[in-house]
Amino acid sequence: MKTPEEYRESLKKMRSNIYKFGELIDDVTIHPSTRRTIMGHSQIFESAMTDEHKELLTTTSSLTGETISRYLSLVTDADQMVKNVNMKRLMFNLTGTCTGGRCVGFNGLNAMWATTYDIDQEHGTDYHQRIKSWLIDAQKRDITLAGALTDPKGDRTKPPHQQDDPDMSLHIVERRDDGIVVRGAKAMIAGVAAANEIIILPGTGYKEPDADYAVSFAIPRDTEKLTIVEARHPSDSRDHECGFDNPVEYGGITQAYLIFEDVFVPNERVFMAGEWKYSLKAVLNFIASYRSAIGGCVAGQGDVIVGASAMMSRANGLNEKVFREKLTQMIINNETTYGMGVAASVLGKKHPSGVWIPDSKLSNVNKVHVATLPYETKRLAQDISGGIAETGCMPSCEDMNSPLYGELLQKYMKAHVDGDTRTRIARLVEWLTIGGGVPGCMHGGGSPDGAKMIVNAKTDMQAYIDLARNVGRIKEEITPIERKR
Amino acid sequence: MKTPEEYRESLKKMRSNIYKFGELIDDVTIHPSTRRTIMGHSQIFESAMTDEHKELLTTTSSLTGETISRYLSLVTDADQMVKNVNMKRLMFNLTGTCTGGRCVGFNGLNAMWATTYDIDQEHGTDYHQRIKSWLIDAQKRDITLAGALTDPKGDRTKPPHQQDDPDMSLHIVERRDDGIVVRGAKAMIAGVAAANEIIILPGTGYKEPDADYAVSFAIPRDTEKLTIVEARHPSDSRDHECGFDNPVEYGGITQAYLIFEDVFVPNERVFMAGEWKYSLKAVLNFIASYRSAIGGCVAGQGDVIVGASAMMSRANGLNEKVFREKLTQMIINNETTYGMGVAASVLGKKHPSGVWIPDSKLSNVNKVHVATLPYETKRLAQDISGGIAETGCMPSCEDMNSPLYGELLQKYMKAHVDGDTRTRIARLVEWLTIGGGVPGCMHGGGSPDGAKMIVNAKTDMQAYIDLARNVGRIKEEITPIERKR
Amino acid sequence: MKTPEEYRESLKKMRSNIYKFGELIDDVTIHPSTRRTIMGHSQIFESAMTDEHKELLTTTSSLTGETISRYLSLVTDADQMVKNVNMKRLMFNLTGTCTGGRCVGFNGLNAMWATTYDIDQEHGTDYHQRIKSWLIDAQKRDITLAGALTDPKGDRTKPPHQQDDPDMSLHIVERRDDGIVVRGAKAMIAGVAAANEIIILPGTGYKEPDADYAVSFAIPRDTEKLTIVEARHPSDSRDHECGFDNPVEYGGITQAYLIFEDVFVPNERVFMAGEWKYSLKAVLNFIASYRSAIGGCVAGQGDVIVGASAMMSRANGLNEKVFREKLTQMIINNETTYGMGVAASVLGKKHPSGVWIPDSKLSNVNKVHVATLPYETKRLAQDISGGIAETGCMPSCEDMNSPLYGELLQKYMKAHVDGDTRTRIARLVEWLTIGGGVPGCMHGGGSPDGAKMIVNAKTDMQAYIDLARNVGRIKEEITPIERKR
Amino acid sequence: MKTPEEYRESLKKMRSNIYKFGELIDDVTIHPSTRRTIMGHSQIFESAMTDEHKELLTTTSSLTGETISRYLSLVTDADQMVKNVNMKRLMFNLTGTCTGGRCVGFNGLNAMWATTYDIDQEHGTDYHQRIKSWLIDAQKRDITLAGALTDPKGDRTKPPHQQDDPDMSLHIVERRDDGIVVRGAKAMIAGVAAANEIIILPGTGYKEPDADYAVSFAIPRDTEKLTIVEARHPSDSRDHECGFDNPVEYGGITQAYLIFEDVFVPNERVFMAGEWKYSLKAVLNFIASYRSAIGGCVAGQGDVIVGASAMMSRANGLNEKVFREKLTQMIINNETTYGMGVAASVLGKKHPSGVWIPDSKLSNVNKVHVATLPYETKRLAQDISGGIAETGCMPSCEDMNSPLYGELLQKYMKAHVDGDTRTRIARLVEWLTIGGGVPGCMHGGGSPDGAKMIVNAKTDMQAYIDLARNVGRIKEEITPIERKR
Repeated sequence: MKTPEEYRESLKKMRSNIYKFGELIDDVTIHPSTRRTIMGHSQIFESAMTDEHKELLTTTSSLTGETISRYLSLVTDADQMVKNVNMKRLMFNLTGTCTGGRCVGFNGLNAMWATTYDIDQEHGTDYHQRIKSWLIDAQKRDITLAGALTDPKGDRTKPPHQQDDPDMSLHIVERRDDGIVVRGAKAMIAGVAAANEIIILPGTGYKEPDADYAVSFAIPRDTEKLTIVEARHPSDSRDHECGFDNPVEYGGITQAYLIFEDVFVPNERVFMAGEWKYSLKAVLNFIASYRSAIGGCVAGQGDVIVGASAMMSRANGLNEKVFREKLTQMIINNETTYGMGVAASVLGKKHPSGVWIPDSKLSNVNKVHVATLPYETKRLAQDISGGIAETGCMPSCEDMNSPLYGELLQKYMKAHVDGDTRTRIARLVEWLTIGGGVPGCMHGGGSPDGAKMIVNAKTDMQAYIDLARNVGRIKEEITPIERKR
Repeated sequence: MKTPEEYRESLKKMRSNIYKFGELIDDVTIHPSTRRTIMGHSQIFESAMTDEHKELLTTTSSLTGETISRYLSLVTDADQMVKNVNMKRLMFNLTGTCTGGRCVGFNGLNAMWATTYDIDQEHGTDYHQRIKSWLIDAQKRDITLAGALTDPKGDRTKPPHQQDDPDMSLHIVERRDDGIVVRGAKAMIAGVAAANEIIILPGTGYKEPDADYAVSFAIPRDTEKLTIVEARHPSDSRDHECGFDNPVEYGGITQAYLIFEDVFVPNERVFMAGEWKYSLKAVLNFIASYRSAIGGCVAGQGDVIVGASAMMSRANGLNEKVFREKLTQMIINNETTYGMGVAASVLGKKHPSGVWIPDSKLSNVNKVHVATLPYETKRLAQDISGGIAETGCMPSCEDMNSPLYGELLQKYMKAHVDGDTRTRIARLVEWLTIGGGVPGCMHGGGSPDGAKMIVNAKTDMQAYIDLARNVGRIKEEITPIERKR
Repeated sequence: MKTPEEYRESLKKMRSNIYKFGELIDDVTIHPSTRRTIMGHSQIFESAMTDEHKELLTTTSSLTGETISRYLSLVTDADQMVKNVNMKRLMFNLTGTCTGGRCVGFNGLNAMWATTYDIDQEHGTDYHQRIKSWLIDAQKRDITLAGALTDPKGDRTKPPHQQDDPDMSLHIVERRDDGIVVRGAKAMIAGVAAANEIIILPGTGYKEPDADYAVSFAIPRDTEKLTIVEARHPSDSRDHECGFDNPVEYGGITQAYLIFEDVFVPNERVFMAGEWKYSLKAVLNFIASYRSAIGGCVAGQGDVIVGASAMMSRANGLNEKVFREKLTQMIINNETTYGMGVAASVLGKKHPSGVWIPDSKLSNVNKVHVATLPYETKRLAQDISGGIAETGCMPSCEDMNSPLYGELLQKYMKAHVDGDTRTRIARLVEWLTIGGGVPGCMHGGGSPDGAKMIVNAKTDMQAYIDLARNVGRIKEEITPIERKR
Repeated sequence: MKTPEEYRESLKKMRSNIYKFGELIDDVTIHPSTRRTIMGHSQIFESAMTDEHKELLTTTSSLTGETISRYLSLVTDADQMVKNVNMKRLMFNLTGTCTGGRCVGFNGLNAMWATTYDIDQEHGTDYHQRIKSWLIDAQKRDITLAGALTDPKGDRTKPPHQQDDPDMSLHIVERRDDGIVVRGAKAMIAGVAAANEIIILPGTGYKEPDADYAVSFAIPRDTEKLTIVEARHPSDSRDHECGFDNPVEYGGITQAYLIFEDVFVPNERVFMAGEWKYSLKAVLNFIASYRSAIGGCVAGQGDVIVGASAMMSRANGLNEKVFREKLTQMIINNETTYGMGVAASVLGKKHPSGVWIPDSKLSNVNKVHVATLPYETKRLAQDISGGIAETGCMPSCEDMNSPLYGELLQKYMKAHVDGDTRTRIARLVEWLTIGGGVPGCMHGGGSPDGAKMIVNAKTDMQAYIDLARNVGRIKEEITPIERKR
């Protein structure tokens, strides 16, 4: 397994194909727009070497028996799924935010493991063997694997093949003997700057004429004809400024747009190529795991927010017990998304291919919590932390160090701690609640409305009604009403 | 194992010592104040005989290897703890309310199993052997076991031994060679009318001078000098009226006051008698399980409320999809308390005595949800169901059948179903949301404020702060502030 | 103006036409099902005679210049509308619940004052003169006037004239020279037992073929061929039991079903008879006032709940400051519905007929709060008050006085106050939160969903979009999307 | 009255004493850090000239009878206070954010109008005449007046005079015949860059030894020895970037730190100088108005958020009716803070000095809503708007215009509108919910906890208890419990 240094070295060696602010990023490991997220991901490698965390961050490969990164493992039972949730919580604890270059890839490979198995059963294809070979190799190379799902979609009222522009979802434009050629884009993809490879999953809702859109594969991040543009995030220009106005050096989130201009993918890396019936299934496999584990993510950030708020109250000169009711509510919120993630994990079941699929109803309920509770947690953090933290209403680092008036600002920012320290703590609260540390967890992995739709789809309303009829011993059938309109 | 008939027969044979409305209840199985709860408990025996439910309601005794009621089993691993949660959800599904004559006893015997083990380790006593012998016998006899914790307490600012009246918590008034004599009361005890025996747990917060209050034992419900008075519950007079104004015949909750006027308990049934240091531990053991499993209870009632609301919307002539957003929220509430119960169960650990203790933090977080989410669920049910269900604002069963104007009422109550059926459905919603079916789940098993206190006690705020300091790389120690006052 | 005694005397003299539990109520002022609500209404008369409250409960008639009950006045400006809100809060403060026999009538006469004016403008009818003459006389006689809107409706997917049974909404079955004859029913009508007369309003959504359903009039409560059946409410059987299990003697709510079996109404009491276009307008006039003022109602009950909770915490032996966060939230809830009622009142405008119509958007927003915030207030009250109050889990009054064990119950119910007092306070909390004192404020005056529909109807989404476009200087028109299905 | 051009000209002429990022801002009207807020404030002058808005933005001076800016008027009755609320809503509607350079000054001058009156009554001083003369002149000059309250405070557990550093609150360091000299700072002061003058209010909680801290005055913004440092806000570096990444050109908020290094204030501009007993009163006068009117602010921003969300849903290709439930909730939130502001305004009373003081209880309840409801509104906006808006996860303006790949990004950002427009709309949602447009309304004008404290202070719990006792006819006095600790 790689050391942190080897990991960063592996990134340095890759072709430059990532842009931000109109410029090509030469070396992702040192460029201000990307180095923080890479330092965040480095902590995975660092922590994997510690006694405290190695059990969580590594596991034994079910394919080779070797010790591997958990992020490249197959999740084969409930216990390992719970460890996935715990690992995500840990990584948010350590970095304060998302290490998105690994978890989507991790969930994606497990989803495709099951999906390729099912496709092969029906179609007699060899996708499952391909992903197996690729994965054994990937484990050996200890790669960092990002994952990509979301297509731009264009006009959302029409399926891909009816779009004016056929490229609005990623699709196969050429099938060759040795592989496929794909065109299109994937939007808002986390952590690619920190990744060596990317696994691509198909979208959903495809019918037969959309077959060319049902495509899944793994590619090196720096593959030819793939252009990556990093998106903005709140206060991201501060990444380029000196000092502590971006207060976190060893963590950070990036989200990118991937543009495929006729990218070639060799057959051994192609895991789906036209089997449109399985695209929904692939995504559902993905979702069940993702929406369980994301409960650990927001809990992990919530833990840091609890700590930052309590620390801020001390820095302001107040005992944090004054805010006990609020802190307790924040902890309840954290434990709720975490607990729901654990429950969804445990109540899952084993897929014939050997991987574990968490319970769909509970994981989707959890997505709704993930899209609401952290907002309350952040509001409470701002409530506790006071006006300076609410919108980061403090002088810039440059002003704090002005030869003209910096000393006066330091004097007036002082409370229970010196002005510099208090400002840095407040910047941390800002970063966590309204700054660069806010991860896109509401829509990441799908929207809460989508999650509610799945909860509804999983709901047999007649079964509920029959429960109530039985309790009330109501013998009459209560037939459904035709809906108007 | 008993049949439902044998179960009821066992109750019929017992001494009459239960009162309500100033009168002695001669036969609990037919008296209107108690027969519904007994019919509810009977469904446990019935369902245990069905293929569908026997796996949940029975298990193999870890003591004898015999098939026994799960309610009399030792919970020895996470899986069995999850089954406990599931069993509670099932019983609320079947009865619409609480079968309290079993679950407190079940949790109580497990809590005392661990506690007696620990006491014996320190004190060299033989309590653990006693409870083991009693339990093997109880399993053989397939008894229904209620449990009792709450003492009246009197002046809450003083410990038991400083009360003006020493009886305000249950205590030992005499120690004899063959047993102990106890005096005092236990308040708000669920389901004793449906039980053969009762297991008594001590209160908490005892210091050495309170040693006589640290007492635990199991007694027959009809033991000499024990007087039981059933408490009221909303709309309980309807239990005595004809017709469907209490719409549930096969379920119902009772909660009683137990008055011990120098009750003798033989040694073999005494599980704690003075070991005050272990009273808090006994209660914490109890709480961890109870507050996990109660998530299943309120989810199970919530399921019935979802069904009753959807059925009501149909009966009113509306498609339930109109209320999809509300129904989804109700389902989310149910799955949240259920999921948190499962998570607390799974994240527990094994006690040296062999029983499983769920995670305290999560089970107490769940108690907070249990004390809030069902209120929203009930509000939404009333919202969906309309004015007649909101406060049960419909004519009485007697009026609906009046020879003078009953036909007219039937005519005007009609909507998508006939007036009689619609009224019965609305009465069911009333019963579930503001009537006799509302279980005391907010304070049952302890208050939400108590749960928050435990969450706080489990919280190491400095550890949270250290997480945040690490993320923000803040090297300064941020010391706590002395609290004013 | 009447004294309380004269008021009750006026009810005694009326024909008996009210039933409950299958029996005719001989004298409403002494029958257990009705006397409490009448004692509640009596307090209006009593308080009108006190210096403290007479300014709120009386006013000067804009028709005659005489001092009259505010409940029979025309609301002619914002200040009087605010006084209406205040009066409702006061009456809930004094009785703990709804004095529904007056406020619906009050709002109804004002709504019909405006509506008759408008009808006459278009149709040249003389309805406005009729209501004026009737009102002058009603003020002189100082009558208590209930109001009735809700029709049974039957199949809600069809208009009245398409129902299988034409009687499912109240309608004119005969037009005579001297008046009209009506048949049908009005459901869930508050306080008729305490009223001398009833003003009837039409339903909504009527088209031309429904003209006979567009009918409004005022009749004596004991008019011929009108049969009244009182509905149940939670724990209403306790009204008939001795002692304090219904803890409130001078307040109570009744809601009745009115059955019209070809009731004759003389012309001078008819205010609408076929002008179907004005039925919606009548109801909207009613709603704007009603949904403003009801904010005072639930605030007024909330005040009592705050007091009962604080008193209960003391009775339990706890300082209420322990619950400060909760009590403050309850107060915030109260002031919110009250404040929104005041704001809707103030932002209204004068109708050409001279009466004041509150702002529709704000009054409907308030209806949503009225249907949600009091549920939180009640939950908090149960949280503060403890297990005995949550579901009234205490022995009955009869048991508390049992010669056999009553003394023991008294002993064990004791805390900071004696057992009897503590029980009575807990019963009060029960009554307010899950008992007979809970008014039907969620659906009373229309459902929250209906209120949201009006808020939506009042919303010009394009205007909002234009605000945003202007702020973002977005020049493009962003056209609406055709909705699928 | 000034034209927008004259207003900007008046700012250009002032001495440069504002810094950001370590640099002196030469001309606030064109510098990227300040020009947006000035363009926002300019709209006040522009709109005051339109028929549509002049009634709201101007009024007749109660001192001179001249037409003046409402922001410089005395609020002398409820109607004018409501117009204040409406004006704030309008300005947020027009600028999308806070025009803080006017409202604090407006509230501040009214608060000091009343306070100086009271001081003079007791002390025989002439402060009231001074403020009157100054105000008449200020109205004539049509100045823009910011206001400043918040002191740095230092160690919050100690009063100003016990601080290690006496400057931690602003204080008088010298009293001269012709005026006073002050030292210290005011923190987080809105809109000073857009103002001609600043009115300073004292802090609270001062005792006699703190007399020198009880100081109030008005000074030109560019007065000698006053240094101003602008604070950061989320994504504020974008103010300096080209293009639409800060999407709002005609609005923006600034908040500054004012550093007084022995600033001289002539007597005629001093409104309090040592009368420590009146410092709390001054602040309470301020708070009552401020916390009423701020309900208009957040409603006004909420209106823009509603519009931006609906526009975004269209741009994404969805009909906004899909989100009706969410949009309705957002509207309810807006109308609630607005309505509560109106109610607090209306229920106020006239101070002997002639100005109107809103109701303290309701205005403080409103502060709690202002600190919570907008967070829900913003969460819902992000929920509706999708992943690109949630954290502004889109390419930068520079990338969208890259000659290399800009066209491809434009293509893939396209949905119902072209990629450029869609991106700009999403940036607007970002700006409103997690960007530079988020005003500091939670702690601005004081924290929600402070507001709750005032609600509590206004609460006579015994009066509530007496209401409940009366309803339950409980004759016993229920005495308070001594609180432990």
